[in-house]
Amino acid sequence: MGGKEYLPPRGLRDIVGDTALIYEYVFNEFRRIAGLHSFYPIIPPTIEYYRLFEEKSGEEIKKTMYVFRDKAGRILALRPEVTASVVRVYLRLLRGEPKPLKLYYVAQCFRYEEPQHGRYREFWQGGLEVIGVPDLSGDLEAAYTASRFLDSIGVRHEYIVGNVALHRSLLTGYGVPSEAQDHILHLIDKSLYDEALDIVSGYGDEAAEGLRKLLSTRLEDLGDFITEFRGRLAEPERVAGETDRLTGFIESLRDLGYDARYDPGLVRGLAYYTGLIYEYKARNPRLRISIGGGGRYDGLSTVYGGPFEYFTGLALGLDRVILAMEGMKPGIKRSPIVAVITVKDVPLSRALEIKSLLEEHGLSSTILTGRRIGKLLGIASRRGVSAAVIIGPREFREGVVIAKDMGTGEQRRLPPEALPLHIIEMIKD
Amino acid sequence: MGGKEYLPPRGLRDIVGDTALIYEYVFNEFRRIAGLHSFYPIIPPTIEYYRLFEEKSGEEIKKTMYVFRDKAGRILALRPEVTASVVRVYLRLLRGEPKPLKLYYVAQCFRYEEPQHGRYREFWQGGLEVIGVPDLSGDLEAAYTASRFLDSIGVRHEYIVGNVALHRSLLTGYGVPSEAQDHILHLIDKSLYDEALDIVSGYGDEAAEGLRKLLSTRLEDLGDFITEFRGRLAEPERVAGETDRLTGFIESLRDLGYDARYDPGLVRGLAYYTGLIYEYKARNPRLRISIGGGGRYDGLSTVYGGPFEYFTGLALGLDRVILAMEGMKPGIKRSPIVAVITVKDVPLSRALEIKSLLEEHGLSSTILTGRRIGKLLGIASRRGVSAAVIIGPREFREGVVIAKDMGTGEQRRLPPEALPLHIIEMIKD
Repeated sequence: MGGKEYLPPRGLRDIVGDTALIYEYVFNEFRRIAGLHSFYPIIPPTIEYYRLFEEKSGEEIKKTMYVFRDKAGRILALRPEVTASVVRVYLRLLRGEPKPLKLYYVAQCFRYEEPQHGRYREFWQGGLEVIGVPDLSGDLEAAYTASRFLDSIGVRHEYIVGNVALHRSLLTGYGVPSEAQDHILHLIDKSLYDEALDIVSGYGDEAAEGLRKLLSTRLEDLGDFITEFRGRLAEPERVAGETDRLTGFIESLRDLGYDARYDPGLVRGLAYYTGLIYEYKARNPRLRISIGGGGRYDGLSTVYGGPFEYFTGLALGLDRVILAMEGMKPGIKRSPIVAVITVKDVPLSRALEIKSLLEEHGLSSTILTGRRIGKLLGIASRRGVSAAVIIGPREFREGVVIAKDMGTGEQRRLPPEALPLHIIEMIKD
Repeated sequence: MGGKEYLPPRGLRDIVGDTALIYEYVFNEFRRIAGLHSFYPIIPPTIEYYRLFEEKSGEEIKKTMYVFRDKAGRILALRPEVTASVVRVYLRLLRGEPKPLKLYYVAQCFRYEEPQHGRYREFWQGGLEVIGVPDLSGDLEAAYTASRFLDSIGVRHEYIVGNVALHRSLLTGYGVPSEAQDHILHLIDKSLYDEALDIVSGYGDEAAEGLRKLLSTRLEDLGDFITEFRGRLAEPERVAGETDRLTGFIESLRDLGYDARYDPGLVRGLAYYTGLIYEYKARNPRLRISIGGGGRYDGLSTVYGGPFEYFTGLALGLDRVILAMEGMKPGIKRSPIVAVITVKDVPLSRALEIKSLLEEHGLSSTILTGRRIGKLLGIASRRGVSAAVIIGPREFREGVVIAKDMGTGEQRRLPPEALPLHIIEMIKD
């Protein structure tokens, strides 16, 4: 009974108490802000076919999925991320919807990784997806909505921005096939630059030199870079457009008061990104962690055999967002404000009626019953209750209740109808 | 591309559109009402050790779990219900908390069953648990909170009430061991009365006769039944108390305006119930389905090696609750009320600023950009938007916006600060 046998499986968590309150608050704020920016909810299943993630989720994720067979032999997986499901559901049910189609989700995801501080095998993602918008307004509407959410819960943050269209165009220009590109970007994401350049040099020294140069070119020099490599880039006009998108994204965010900077080494772990990408970093002075990211994944629909479509979106790691809130006191502690105290001879339905009256006025209450009112008041006081409603047999007969201010000890008999406003007045100070 | 390849795995669902809105609304209402009755959130992991459910979840559930091994060989299961997790978490983390301890959850559960209308392999439960309350006030506070929730979303409902303490006392009195009792109750739950009586007759004809009688005794005759079988019941005083609880529960609910009736055959599928049990039935005239239930499971903590504690609680099947809402029009349809329309030359950050201004006043908005304002207004109109905010290059230069009533066509130039109240006024009618 030491407690060890009550542990959840390794890497999983029990979220209770104030932490659970913070989780609920953060989930609600995410949904509320997403709704106010005209994103609609989507609830895909927690279990998907393994093959949905096999193709384009990236090496890292593929290795760490919970995969199992059901009784009919289907190979299933607990989702490691939600975007693949969103694209599948889009192809299945939402193709006919007017664009832009804007979707949000709050969903737990699963990765079988070595647990560490702030990293769990089950974790929560809040995501925003914009479908059908080719221009920057789609990227910005998603990114800014996430910023508004982070602002609303008090998480200061900054943007790190990149654009894998540049890397891909260069690598394609030098004849590197698409799967090798995925692997090279994966190595860059892990900061294994030398290994990445090593593989690229297999396609010529000039290719490696080009990538090395790209990885150290500043935003303001990207124009020169493109001019220099124009002959070798695949789709050079598109690349120039992507540079404009990069600049426009960063400048718009700066106009709105956020820090945003270009990092040519940012490529992100998911293999499906095709253009603009970005990462959110918390600016909590004690904890400068990555809290999420997103980008363009135009055409991911074709990977699943569907027609081409424009996609852009992001996911915030809500566990890490909550970690970054630490010490920010979001002021969401809640305690039962009102104890409804009644003795055994009074019908419980009377106490429940009083509770619903309080509920209708937004007052949270809890019942305490027993034989002696004095003892119940003692319990209420120890629980930090600010007001008590007492219903003894006499009050019940007379159709009144006693409202007691637990701070001052003052009490007053009054009809139930007058109770809610009286209590709201009482707890105001 | 016919759509079949985009299906989720069998028995699983993609929840989108208005249905997803209804789900979010129902989840939120459940949490809101639970909070107003001083229940606190708990978020246990979706994956648990298989052995947690093995013991006491009941035959039915054990057969239909998603079970798999992780890479370290641990036998894990996707939770088929949440109460076992709540008891585990209580033993691990919450034993020291002041009682009553009141917890709620909204969580998806998994059962590998043959899919049918309204039954899925992943489904949502909203649960309320009261820990540490021996008397009826705990049962009633949970049950009534659920009723308040159902009322708030417009689901009329009634209670079917039973008490397995009666069956268990009789069977124990005739020497039927506990596991055999679980199986007998399981058969009664499946309405297989003859099979149940057959097994009981193995412990004597009198035992079978007693059970047959109990299964046809009305609430008002339970006193006579107890008198008749007093000599054979285990703990007859406790049984008398349980009859009082049954009566008190039903009468209190009737006082509060709900229909509640005793059904001696109600035993429910979960093996861990020890006393009072109840079921919620929707009173939707076209759909009288069971939408959830609950009861007492005192001492379930001892099954996991912990000390004895009082538990009572319930779970609503939220998918079935939503099914029962059908045709009730909860008035939660949401559409982008305001289109923020801007042409390419205006910086997007300007449109985003306007969006945040609207958001702060609870107005949902979406951006539309392009080259021609007329075309964008056409899109907005087809999307059913009620108001548009237009920012052309001239408005941007002059620091104003144009607010357009999409119903009347009226429009007015005004400074952004005046915009939210103007739009609230505009869409009022």
